[in-house]
Amino acid sequence: MEKRVYNYGAGPSTLPLEVLEKAQRDLLAYPGCGHSVMEMSHRTKAYMEIHNRAKNAIKRLMNVPDGYEVLLLQGGASGQFSMVPMNLARRGDKVDYANTGYFAKLAIKEAKRWADPEFICTSEDKNFTYIPKITPDMLRPDTKYLHITGNKTIEGTAYHTLPDCGDVPLVADWSSSIMGQQIDVAKHALIYAGAQKNMGIAGLTVVIVKKDAVIDPADPMVPDIMNYNVQIAQDSLHHTPSGWAVYMAALMCEWIEAQGGVAAMEALNRKKSGMVYDVIDKSDLYINDIPKEDRSLVNVTAKLPSQELTDRFAKEAEAEGMINVKGHRSVGGLRISLYNGAPLENAEKIADFMQRFEKNL
Amino acid sequence: MEKRVYNYGAGPSTLPLEVLEKAQRDLLAYPGCGHSVMEMSHRTKAYMEIHNRAKNAIKRLMNVPDGYEVLLLQGGASGQFSMVPMNLARRGDKVDYANTGYFAKLAIKEAKRWADPEFICTSEDKNFTYIPKITPDMLRPDTKYLHITGNKTIEGTAYHTLPDCGDVPLVADWSSSIMGQQIDVAKHALIYAGAQKNMGIAGLTVVIVKKDAVIDPADPMVPDIMNYNVQIAQDSLHHTPSGWAVYMAALMCEWIEAQGGVAAMEALNRKKSGMVYDVIDKSDLYINDIPKEDRSLVNVTAKLPSQELTDRFAKEAEAEGMINVKGHRSVGGLRISLYNGAPLENAEKIADFMQRFEKNL
Repeated sequence: MEKRVYNYGAGPSTLPLEVLEKAQRDLLAYPGCGHSVMEMSHRTKAYMEIHNRAKNAIKRLMNVPDGYEVLLLQGGASGQFSMVPMNLARRGDKVDYANTGYFAKLAIKEAKRWADPEFICTSEDKNFTYIPKITPDMLRPDTKYLHITGNKTIEGTAYHTLPDCGDVPLVADWSSSIMGQQIDVAKHALIYAGAQKNMGIAGLTVVIVKKDAVIDPADPMVPDIMNYNVQIAQDSLHHTPSGWAVYMAALMCEWIEAQGGVAAMEALNRKKSGMVYDVIDKSDLYINDIPKEDRSLVNVTAKLPSQELTDRFAKEAEAEGMINVKGHRSVGGLRISLYNGAPLENAEKIADFMQRFEKNL
Repeated sequence: MEKRVYNYGAGPSTLPLEVLEKAQRDLLAYPGCGHSVMEMSHRTKAYMEIHNRAKNAIKRLMNVPDGYEVLLLQGGASGQFSMVPMNLARRGDKVDYANTGYFAKLAIKEAKRWADPEFICTSEDKNFTYIPKITPDMLRPDTKYLHITGNKTIEGTAYHTLPDCGDVPLVADWSSSIMGQQIDVAKHALIYAGAQKNMGIAGLTVVIVKKDAVIDPADPMVPDIMNYNVQIAQDSLHHTPSGWAVYMAALMCEWIEAQGGVAAMEALNRKKSGMVYDVIDKSDLYINDIPKEDRSLVNVTAKLPSQELTDRFAKEAEAEGMINVKGHRSVGGLRISLYNGAPLENAEKIADFMQRFEKNL
């Protein structure tokens, strides 16, 4: 086999080798079925078994309470930017958002097409390097929900305590740290996440929704595929699901369970990112201004003094088999993503490289 | 390896063994990259190569003319039921549909949320067993497009000549026979198709759109992910694509090219379905009322005199390793799907079984 690289991409990103090997082994024939998961009709018992394996593993791992439904959809978090307002608010209703950067701005942009959204707080004054505090009095009267971005893939920040929004339903985009840090589903009305960072591959979007938070019936303008009620009623099989991605989520979630569940993942992610933050904090070269309590456990960002040094860092890292270390095109710098699928070795490797890079300057 | 079954499912369905084996071989590391396609950031050169392999193969195979764009999206044909009216019509505009059955009804249901759609013809009088003729005078004045369902997966009918709609843009859902029969893209304003039947796996939706047919700018209510202009401008990378499904489409399209392209596929599909239609037409047991000129090349439907016999047929077929032979839940009976990925052997096998089943009654 070709030597595998160390992949620090922000998603899609590294999957555990065991998970990939299992997928490879059964690719031609899912055990007992004589055909590939990719060839499987979604109206068969065999597919329903996979569908339920994924759903049930998510329920167990996230302690999903009664009254919530787990949906396995397409369209990514970007699709949810529209679905959330369309299903939790009526046209023109007030909905509140926390401005923590790039993806919060994308989310509110889509909400504006349907509702009356407003940023009720922002960390833009410090270039999104912290998590702005929220108290119930900051929310607008009659707002239908508060939307937060749980972990900021681009900026490298994360909520480690949920905001206090009183009785207002909390909606959170946990795309980049779902199952990578412990969160209390019961405190949310809705959670959504693309699967491609911590719990599977691109093409699957997981939504965990409190059923009675959804407006029923939906506004007649809401397309069936964007209607949570339709998806709940049809168990996410309103149309042909992204079967292979659902299968990969089942494998990945079962792997997470075998490692000890989300608590074990959080501990490992804390250790991995901790190694890299340690290098940064002890360094005179790398800069990360985020207060420790607001730092992401899975996306470590750092600035270097110049674009030239950033380019050189990336080039030299790649020469040692470490890829995708550059920050998002909107912010530059470095970004080291260490999701659930990345072993400790990935953190050790980059931490060591960072130290050597600084020494050799 | 576990013995592979003969899979007659209506989609997802059989893929060529060579395609699956190639995917399996490179699953842990895409050649030269040291990581799986499933782990690949969509912002890398490696992924762009796969993205362009898929796009370019589609362009070559379908002879996509200048002025058209090939989009690689999520959400299935069901998503396109909404995207088409949202992007080709303004709210309340007239849009015309041909009623050829189940999926045409789903398509018009979604169009109603946005525009003023109407069925301008129907074959419901004969239970959708034929393709209703269309002449330009049947279209409503000022209609923005005519929508047809090219191949009817459930009913087993197909257009073999495009309707004459004069100057009105033609939109077609070719989900179940894209690349399985030759069609003239230049006669369409827009073609859409789920990839999971003839050209790949579920999770990828292909749209081939004439750029100047799209309303630009779109209505402000159209979500970015449903906005063709946004997807065109961002080369279908507005958000994380379903990378593995795009990769499988690249492999499948390149395989089709190696077989001789769409013309070769059509000839093979004609031969395969012809074998099964022959059995039906010579039989006293199986019934297919569709005029020969309207029959699908990829979905052969047949009725048996009773549900009991249908169940027995399916059970005995499965005992011989032939699965998914039952018709869609909405119509019952049998359905034998023989898409591009199904070798001639699949047709021979079921044709032989059907004859034996009848003889042994």
